[in-house]
Amino acid sequence: MRNEYQANLAEVADTLVQMADLVHTGMWQASRALLDVDAELARHVVAADAHVDAQYQDLQECTYLLLARQAPVAGDLRLLTSALHIARDIERMGDLAAHVAKTALRRTPQPAVVPELHEIISTMADHAHRIAGKLVTVIQDADLQLADQLEHDDNTIDTCKRQLFAILLEPGWAYPIAPAIDAAQLARWYERYADHAVNAGARVRYLATGITLRSSRWVQVRAVQPRARVPATIE
Amino acid sequence: MRNEYQANLAEVADTLVQMADLVHTGMWQASRALLDVDAELARHVVAADAHVDAQYQDLQECTYLLLARQAPVAGDLRLLTSALHIARDIERMGDLAAHVAKTALRRTPQPAVVPELHEIISTMADHAHRIAGKLVTVIQDADLQLADQLEHDDNTIDTCKRQLFAILLEPGWAYPIAPAIDAAQLARWYERYADHAVNAGARVRYLATGITLRSSRWVQVRAVQPRARVPATIE
Repeated sequence: MRNEYQANLAEVADTLVQMADLVHTGMWQASRALLDVDAELARHVVAADAHVDAQYQDLQECTYLLLARQAPVAGDLRLLTSALHIARDIERMGDLAAHVAKTALRRTPQPAVVPELHEIISTMADHAHRIAGKLVTVIQDADLQLADQLEHDDNTIDTCKRQLFAILLEPGWAYPIAPAIDAAQLARWYERYADHAVNAGARVRYLATGITLRSSRWVQVRAVQPRARVPATIE
Repeated sequence: MRNEYQANLAEVADTLVQMADLVHTGMWQASRALLDVDAELARHVVAADAHVDAQYQDLQECTYLLLARQAPVAGDLRLLTSALHIARDIERMGDLAAHVAKTALRRTPQPAVVPELHEIISTMADHAHRIAGKLVTVIQDADLQLADQLEHDDNTIDTCKRQLFAILLEPGWAYPIAPAIDAAQLARWYERYADHAVNAGARVRYLATGITLRSSRWVQVRAVQPRARVPATIE
């Protein structure tokens, strides 16, 4: 019974890593679909988000049952409730990747991003990709030094967003309204994606340091897991 | 002990009603602040959203502890997990009200909404207010007929959003880019606000009908509650 419980805890932690990996890949693919005008890839991202949503539902159900059946205390209670918070942030990141992909689809076969904004959107996409990649490692390895970096990385996305708005609001904007509206929403989505990654990373940090660093359940649970990544079904 | 447990269950249900009431009022005030250019009211809405966030945190902590300590089964387990889902939707509604208020603040003392869009934004605000008002009643009284109406009401907001975009994308748009971007985001926020209300209503419906209509724990728990509304601190 206890062994099954340990296995269930490990499964929750594993699901978080898989979800983080999926939304990391998802936003990267959404950015490629947007910038390279690839409708097929955009449709794939939208479909893959349903998989993240399903994982989130499963994780919630599993965690609620563990709470109700195992009556965890202290570290395990904290682990499970934190997992719910982290999963929520990751699920939102998946939604935001799907929003980016849907913007690409809405303008297809035309590009949704006008040439003047290609570079700044591409830079935001790069930052978002790097931040989500760090989040995967933070969750997988309970890497707290990397968690500390996330907040700084987030500032670079905010700077990009301001630059993008400065371009949009210049008097000489030579395009119709639609691409300006798209660009404003895209900037917002990349910014929110990074915000959720920072939130999730901060929660791992809180979970690990709030109890006492190396004895935390998160570190213990993650330490016994193989570093398997999610199967490459959406690569 | 069981009496305390019953009281805790009722408290969770009460908190949901209070949260729904707060975000109902919050979006209405945000809309007034936006359309009447009232910066003080806008600041109030942003501050009040922190109260909703705090209630959401408390509700989560309380629910997790009830799950872990009381090991609820069947109807109570379902009640508590559904409460978490409903609370999440309501908390997002509060965020969206705060977004609307922040848009009002960003342009103050200028109006954020240009005259051509005043009527359509005002109509969206009315619909959003009516939908959130119904949600309060759905949660408070487990009113399933009203829950059924929510989905239809949501369609009217989607229609408004399409109308607003049609105005924005007409070749003759006579304003700068900024108010167009604001309007597109506002329309999105009202639409999302309504979506979350529909989700929350559907969850109450599922909770009540999935078990067996009148014997559901939701109806039982709500039936013994006085119909007290949240104190009028933010009126």
